[in-house]
Amino acid sequence: MSYPRPITDHSRLSINTATTRVQWNLSQAIDGYARAGVGGISPWRDQIAEMGLAKAAKAIKEADLTVSGVCRGGMFPWSDAQGRVAMLDDNRQAIEEAATLNAQCLVLVVGGLPAGSKDLAGAHAMVEEAISVLLPEARAAGVPLAIEPLHPMYAADRACVNTMRHALDICERAGEGIGVAVDVYHVWWDTELQSQIKRAGKERLLAFHICDWLVPTRDLLTDRGMMGDGVIDIPLLRGWVEEAGFDGLNEVEIFSELDWWKRDPEEVVKICKERSLTVV
Amino acid sequence: MSYPRPITDHSRLSINTATTRVQWNLSQAIDGYARAGVGGISPWRDQIAEMGLAKAAKAIKEADLTVSGVCRGGMFPWSDAQGRVAMLDDNRQAIEEAATLNAQCLVLVVGGLPAGSKDLAGAHAMVEEAISVLLPEARAAGVPLAIEPLHPMYAADRACVNTMRHALDICERAGEGIGVAVDVYHVWWDTELQSQIKRAGKERLLAFHICDWLVPTRDLLTDRGMMGDGVIDIPLLRGWVEEAGFDGLNEVEIFSELDWWKRDPEEVVKICKERSLTVV
Repeated sequence: MSYPRPITDHSRLSINTATTRVQWNLSQAIDGYARAGVGGISPWRDQIAEMGLAKAAKAIKEADLTVSGVCRGGMFPWSDAQGRVAMLDDNRQAIEEAATLNAQCLVLVVGGLPAGSKDLAGAHAMVEEAISVLLPEARAAGVPLAIEPLHPMYAADRACVNTMRHALDICERAGEGIGVAVDVYHVWWDTELQSQIKRAGKERLLAFHICDWLVPTRDLLTDRGMMGDGVIDIPLLRGWVEEAGFDGLNEVEIFSELDWWKRDPEEVVKICKERSLTVV
Repeated sequence: MSYPRPITDHSRLSINTATTRVQWNLSQAIDGYARAGVGGISPWRDQIAEMGLAKAAKAIKEADLTVSGVCRGGMFPWSDAQGRVAMLDDNRQAIEEAATLNAQCLVLVVGGLPAGSKDLAGAHAMVEEAISVLLPEARAAGVPLAIEPLHPMYAADRACVNTMRHALDICERAGEGIGVAVDVYHVWWDTELQSQIKRAGKERLLAFHICDWLVPTRDLLTDRGMMGDGVIDIPLLRGWVEEAGFDGLNEVEIFSELDWWKRDPEEVVKICKERSLTVV
């Protein structure tokens, strides 16, 4: 096992707005994260829409925050022709938003099975078809697409790409301008993680998301832990992505109905900063 | 996609006693399953202990039920030397019970991280070390060991072997007398499932467990669905194991605090039988 050098400042810390989404709207989050002196932010699109894209872009720029990613494009598999058109339109808008915000990537949560379907292979094919349509447009807009393999417990309803291996297979078939977002929560259990991170290399490692896996996990979606409160050896995984050439931001993304969404957001950000120096 | 021939009788249907564990003790389950005319049973060890091994063996034999597996050995990773000794002793007892019951395999739930540990690679190594100690004893007792890759959401606390690929890598390093239990609930999401089932082949396909993945899944452990109520294409997966040579029993194993454990067990068994003819 090789551990990376400890983190000594907050310049490479980014906070995903999901982490404080219950407490702060996007405007408040931009102010709060900037006040705390972290280096980056990753906004969700519903919050961008609420604030207004131009206003959000201006505020983020003035706050001197790097946009480590925009959450999210994807949700590709469609049930009918009309759904396919709406999905492509929505993703085109996401690409435009990511370009306007000068985001380091547009995170793709690729979607699960269409309603009523059990055809997993069919869903996989739809994901690749949608990517083949959208990738040239993303390239033209200068927006790298980052497939985020989600934990297999989300395969049915959120993302049918669940391993780095599968995500990178898709990337290789698709060509340039697409890579992966590595979220420790989703991939920490995978015996192939180290080798697939190495395979991805600097070019395809577009984002690194951190939080922790709690034992027990009380809810499939909204019981993610603060770094250090669970079982993931985050420094080990950070070492792997950095050895592979990643030098982007470490983005904290915590969905926590039961704990962190109930706390003072200033305290949440403070603890993110503290933990990033000690357990990341 | 290739689908297998439909099932037309209940001779190859087995029921895992977890499916009715809240309603029936082992003695009642043996009677109930035999009365329903299913071909097999898979008892849990706590229920065997409660009934008494000799008495259970006699009752199962008299009921003419095939024991498709004994649940469960494993829980290998240890925290200290004393824990290691206790773990090996417990697994030796499990092997003896499986031999006495003439079980087709002893199912191994390999265990997660030792308490307080984040060393996943260390846990993997402990799993292989324990298997290397126990496999010769299992071979001598005539008991095939079946590693059950559990869903990755159990990696921390139940089983750090979460894919067919990893399980089969372990089997190949261990040699003869060990294989896998394929539970559709745990592996349905895996893009490598078909190829790994083929790789396993008849020799290493020791058990096939069925239930369904519900959307939404409300609890990580006890919200498994009855076949047909979720998103898994069970006939497709049955086709894959049968093409690879598997001709054992189709074992229903449903943990369902929220639904099936609350129902009349006669009804549960009846519905298992009906569904096995229509959606398995």
